[in-house]
Amino acid sequence: MDKTICPRFEKAMNLLSQRWIGLIIYQLLSGPQRFCHIEAAIGVSGKVLSERLKDLENEGIVERNIYPETPVRIEYSLTEKGLAFESILRDIEHWSQSWLEA
Amino acid sequence: MDKTICPRFEKAMNLLSQRWIGLIIYQLLSGPQRFCHIEAAIGVSGKVLSERLKDLENEGIVERNIYPETPVRIEYSLTEKGLAFESILRDIEHWSQSWLEA
Repeated sequence: MDKTICPRFEKAMNLLSQRWIGLIIYQLLSGPQRFCHIEAAIGVSGKVLSERLKDLENEGIVERNIYPETPVRIEYSLTEKGLAFESILRDIEHWSQSWLEA
Repeated sequence: MDKTICPRFEKAMNLLSQRWIGLIIYQLLSGPQRFCHIEAAIGVSGKVLSERLKDLENEGIVERNIYPETPVRIEYSLTEKGLAFESILRDIEHWSQSWLEA
């Protein structure tokens, strides 16, 4: 038998199966925020967060916005593609509340 | 700042971030099936599939059913907790079709 899984679905699952990716998108659903805010909110190391944000930028899911203030302000936010992830994450949240122990 | 991510949501994301977990549940949405059928449909190695099915059994997401025929027939199926995953996977499927290149 040949593989029957849709390649696009497989790609989406591979993306989600990178640790922290889902949590970063989830965290950004509450609005644009700075690196150190994301880092503290989800408890990820700065090194890994930096790698994942780059991956998410390359995938067109996250945007890095630079505000030329003094000192310069850099914030991360979800693109339209990233915002479209919301219903997936809300479903996961709902499932986890119904089926997992606290 | 303290971590603000809900531990149950985090646990669900950790589960999904194990490679193949989502694809195995997705494959089982089409009904109970044998090991070799899942293996071929998603293109996973037998060794890894065996490990993941054990994890999914331990999580109460997948059930292993043994039919005492000759030769014995063993099929895997989703529990109620596993079936409750359907809307998450359908959402991921929908997102991948809207936002990813084939």
